Amino acid sequence: MKPTSNTPIPFIAAANYAQTGAWVDALQAAMPAERIIAFDAMNDEDKATCQVAIVANPNPADLHQLPQLQWIHSVWAGVERLVADLGDTHLKIVRLVDPQLANTMAEAVLAWTLYLHRDMPAYAKQQAKQIWQALEYVRPQQRRIGLLGLGALGEAAAVSLLRAGFQVAGWSRHRKAIDGVNCFAGADELPAMLAQTDILVCLLPLTPDTRGLLNAVALTALPQGASLINFARGAIVNDTDLHAALDSGHLAHAVLDVFEVEPLPVSQWQWQHPGITLLPHCSAPTDRQTASQIVAGNILRYRQSGVLPVTIDVQRGY
Amino acid sequence: MKPTSNTPIPFIAAANYAQTGAWVDALQAAMPAERIIAFDAMNDEDKATCQVAIVANPNPADLHQLPQLQWIHSVWAGVERLVADLGDTHLKIVRLVDPQLANTMAEAVLAWTLYLHRDMPAYAKQQAKQIWQALEYVRPQQRRIGLLGLGALGEAAAVSLLRAGFQVAGWSRHRKAIDGVNCFAGADELPAMLAQTDILVCLLPLTPDTRGLLNAVALTALPQGASLINFARGAIVNDTDLHAALDSGHLAHAVLDVFEVEPLPVSQWQWQHPGITLLPHCSAPTDRQTASQIVAGNILRYRQSGVLPVTIDVQRGY
Repeated sequence: MKPTSNTPIPFIAAANYAQTGAWVDALQAAMPAERIIAFDAMNDEDKATCQVAIVANPNPADLHQLPQLQWIHSVWAGVERLVADLGDTHLKIVRLVDPQLANTMAEAVLAWTLYLHRDMPAYAKQQAKQIWQALEYVRPQQRRIGLLGLGALGEAAAVSLLRAGFQVAGWSRHRKAIDGVNCFAGADELPAMLAQTDILVCLLPLTPDTRGLLNAVALTALPQGASLINFARGAIVNDTDLHAALDSGHLAHAVLDVFEVEPLPVSQWQWQHPGITLLPHCSAPTDRQTASQIVAGNILRYRQSGVLPVTIDVQRGY
Repeated sequence: MKPTSNTPIPFIAAANYAQTGAWVDALQAAMPAERIIAFDAMNDEDKATCQVAIVANPNPADLHQLPQLQWIHSVWAGVERLVADLGDTHLKIVRLVDPQLANTMAEAVLAWTLYLHRDMPAYAKQQAKQIWQALEYVRPQQRRIGLLGLGALGEAAAVSLLRAGFQVAGWSRHRKAIDGVNCFAGADELPAMLAQTDILVCLLPLTPDTRGLLNAVALTALPQGASLINFARGAIVNDTDLHAALDSGHLAHAVLDVFEVEPLPVSQWQWQHPGITLLPHCSAPTDRQTASQIVAGNILRYRQSGVLPVTIDVQRGY
């Protein structure tokens, strides 16, 4: 269908989302010729005519009030909740692919990999006990990092880790080729990669295939003393199995930025476990300015040509 | 004086140094045609004839038993204690300049800069209090790192920080030129560099000029909320002034790897201060294998040609 110019473009977030105003302002600044409005500010004509919406974990009921809506652009990279909430839908979904997000995630992967590589958790425990003891230094050339997920984020992380001198392997659903990275693919090859990984970094999308992927079987396939960084989605890791692997000493440490329920309830064991560094979903925040530019570029191209950006595969989930 | 081949080469460390045997083995393996022996294993003829010694914080009295000794090769990069202990001496002193050491130090600078840049100390405190709150992300392009010292270690650190996207400035005694680094030089320009530094990284040698350099005046010149990393020598920082700067909140955090007395006594305030990450002099350990290769190369060249490697300026102290 040919796009109609001048139809309004709502920004639709969860109820009471504190940053709606800031997003509307940033998006409007990035697309001065468009009319960007918060969902709550739409009148009946706006709702009857809008074809495109920009969303941040919206309430599906809000989307159902927009009969002409053709596609939605999420400002998050992860859209699994959106897909689940919408269920069977004709809507095309575009997720954010922001090179700046990949940079920030690559930085986070490098930062927390170095955190584990240079034994910062162990040194913090020694400081608390007033123990002065230098631990054996391991060169990065002898440290094996395994990346789960080799999309835009995984590839940027791989480049960063290689520059820092690490051995880098990667695993993805379909085989990738990245210079300097030992690439594994498919369920069959996962155990082989895990068996040669000292620090496992999870950057996978959450899909039916990846939910619970890091269970007892996978964690046991890692070498004794390995560590885990989860910057993807909480539900990819089986919490009970992780807890057991840390308690048994099979895993040395886990850096967890994501959880099935966020904020993580204070009753959860992860807060106080000495083998866990807990982060509040801060590894790679969306940059509102760069994200708004990317969303604007996609929408303007659609206005001019009717061509949609790459949309997600609802069956696959990303 | 022309060198005499076949004179023994002692390895001379502090009394009861646990790694003497490992050093003798590594050095012997790197110079199979030479005779490397521990000081304690020397006989009278060995002592009467040896011209070169390899040292690790030796007792000067041991060196005075070697009448033909011309020069000594330290396996440490920092030789200020050696210079002070020897006093007025005719001995030429060679310190270790190991590219691998520069790599390891550059990695440490990057690792602990990212540790501060990505707010790891603040997130650790939040975890302890079960607080879930993402802090504002600052891009590396907006984070200003100031390096004190632009020798081999400082230059390698600068390259690493630039690749990670940081703004990098550097300060040295004499002006250097490093691509992408805003270079300051001399005492007059120190305040200007400090005033525009968010994370200050100290890699200076300890000399009469640098002892106590980071005192109240220098720390106050840093912007409110800046942080310090000291990977050089403890005596460069005035501990009392650092304590005051942390307590007042002018400095947010300090990562300290070096102290005037090591191991740091358990009575010292640094162990328990919430604004300090304390490390046991582990930022850049000497790599025995690569160091032995470098020492061997210097000694073999001397055996063949009589040419000494670059020796330190005893007056300057490095």
